[in-house]
Amino acid sequence: MKFGRKILRDVEGYVPGEQPADPKVVKLNTNENPYPPSPKVLEALRALPADAMRRYPDALSEELRCVCAERYGYDGADWVFAGNGMDELLAMVLRTFVDPGDTVLSVYPTYVIYETLAQLHGALYKGVELDEGFQLPETFFSESARLCFFARPNPPSGACPPRAEVERFCESFDGLVVIDEAYVDFADDDCMDFPKRHENAIVMRTFSKSFSLAGLRVGVAVARPEIVREFLKTKDSYNLNAFSQAAAVAAMGDYAHMEANVAKVRATRGRLIEGLQALGFTVPESQANFVLAQWDGAPSAKEIFQRLREDGIYVRYFEHRRLENALRITVGTDDEIDRLIDALKRILA
Amino acid sequence: MKFGRKILRDVEGYVPGEQPADPKVVKLNTNENPYPPSPKVLEALRALPADAMRRYPDALSEELRCVCAERYGYDGADWVFAGNGMDELLAMVLRTFVDPGDTVLSVYPTYVIYETLAQLHGALYKGVELDEGFQLPETFFSESARLCFFARPNPPSGACPPRAEVERFCESFDGLVVIDEAYVDFADDDCMDFPKRHENAIVMRTFSKSFSLAGLRVGVAVARPEIVREFLKTKDSYNLNAFSQAAAVAAMGDYAHMEANVAKVRATRGRLIEGLQALGFTVPESQANFVLAQWDGAPSAKEIFQRLREDGIYVRYFEHRRLENALRITVGTDDEIDRLIDALKRILA
Repeated sequence: MKFGRKILRDVEGYVPGEQPADPKVVKLNTNENPYPPSPKVLEALRALPADAMRRYPDALSEELRCVCAERYGYDGADWVFAGNGMDELLAMVLRTFVDPGDTVLSVYPTYVIYETLAQLHGALYKGVELDEGFQLPETFFSESARLCFFARPNPPSGACPPRAEVERFCESFDGLVVIDEAYVDFADDDCMDFPKRHENAIVMRTFSKSFSLAGLRVGVAVARPEIVREFLKTKDSYNLNAFSQAAAVAAMGDYAHMEANVAKVRATRGRLIEGLQALGFTVPESQANFVLAQWDGAPSAKEIFQRLREDGIYVRYFEHRRLENALRITVGTDDEIDRLIDALKRILA
Repeated sequence: MKFGRKILRDVEGYVPGEQPADPKVVKLNTNENPYPPSPKVLEALRALPADAMRRYPDALSEELRCVCAERYGYDGADWVFAGNGMDELLAMVLRTFVDPGDTVLSVYPTYVIYETLAQLHGALYKGVELDEGFQLPETFFSESARLCFFARPNPPSGACPPRAEVERFCESFDGLVVIDEAYVDFADDDCMDFPKRHENAIVMRTFSKSFSLAGLRVGVAVARPEIVREFLKTKDSYNLNAFSQAAAVAAMGDYAHMEANVAKVRATRGRLIEGLQALGFTVPESQANFVLAQWDGAPSAKEIFQRLREDGIYVRYFEHRRLENALRITVGTDDEIDRLIDALKRILA
């Protein structure tokens, strides 16, 4: 490519999970919430002023940042930055705080986009190997880097190291710690209070999972005001459109609706794990809205993935080391999980 | 800032024009369209499937890219890339095609964000001085750089160099040429066919101006498929939300609505220029939906700006070299322009 950057020559870019058009597909492949968002969201979109399309949105997403600060126990919008999905926040944190050539730290396996983003930015990337049970090795705590991506719960297993471990890491680490809490509403606890005590902690949340708003693309980062100010320097002028801002504000205003959906997903997660274990899968503990179903026999995990797909049930299969013998399965409705388990029974019979 | 990048230390970030909450303000400061978007846009948003919020949007914005390709005379989505406003496209073109330390070329004065983006990316920036009438000097054609931002029409004057000049530049320039056509629907002609003949041409359009969709944040870039493929590598996974994709597709489907609004704005632009000239302003020819009203007397342009603001009429004043004695005024409705001219009469009396 004549005008291309050398740095991008071997980059393939992130390949998102399939979005089949067929509404009959049982879609357990991209960790969406199976339940709709609060009805208040649609009400808020309908109530937008006529000029909301024609005029520029609030460039600073002030209202959204205020309601998030209030909910998360922070003193005003200065502690919150809002972005076009957590996608944008993850990319921005490198552009804002990492120089090309610096090292970015994470673990392996984890969310593959961390490594892709480091590559796109010209940063070095180090993924410390998790142990067999997808837990942190002690060596992780002596690593040094400009920035660390720390997903909690961590995909693709959903493992959730104890808060005290994360706090110990923040204390000893010399760089910024991005605590990716995309899935934390499905977990037992969170680290949202860390930015109060740790100047290097940035906690990120998304509206795509627990709030059922993946289609609207909203994420927020909570951090010290001096960190938020740097984000404001590097952001696109109007990075969050008027509809997404209004939707996220409304979703935050009906927190109980989200919590009720989360409770249902957590209950179904238990049923899903039991069903998979009864079929012979090994399933590490998950605190997210997905589980990793490990399978060592015949047919292979990849074959199972394909057979499920032919049955109209989409799960995720990764051609990555340590994941060849596994399926990542989103927790859907009880009915969807029943259909999955039935299909697996047929395939494994 | 302990964790900050040196490169950002002196960056202030782009300061967007004010968005006053008071609906009575005559808002002629951010080049929005004074007329609403096609009613088909609202219909399309209302017709979105119930799952559009809960599920991820199309990561590749295929439908939008297809309708743009068709409208602009290109053979399919491979020639089009879609982004979260032209904001995102302008930032992405640097990340995708410019290495830190490379030179980015443009003119002075022009859209200030080009320089800000180069600074954020660690690129060098050169703005070749336009002549007194805001036209290109001959020296511009012998410049060398990795990439050139070429706004046509060019803010803040709205000058529109002949197509043949832009084509001559594309032929001789050694880097990529980003032809920023944000305002081109208000002009007499455009350069949308250039990517067919010039491998280094990228034409960018926005839905914020002529299509009255600033609140939705949609921009598109038209270029050779090998250029589009590089954009696809560096984009955020899901960069364009479901609502914005649907809105832009619907707006493109009612092209006549946009053209009718543009015709009204162009007619009002003529009236605005005449009115300003009658008051003693110098107004360079503009082919955009704004004009630059130059004023050398007393009270100063800045004082006029402030007095207008007190009267509830917002225009744009730039504290930049060569623009101290000027106001940039968006072409509003006839009624808004009458109110502006009346207010100016009082202020200058």
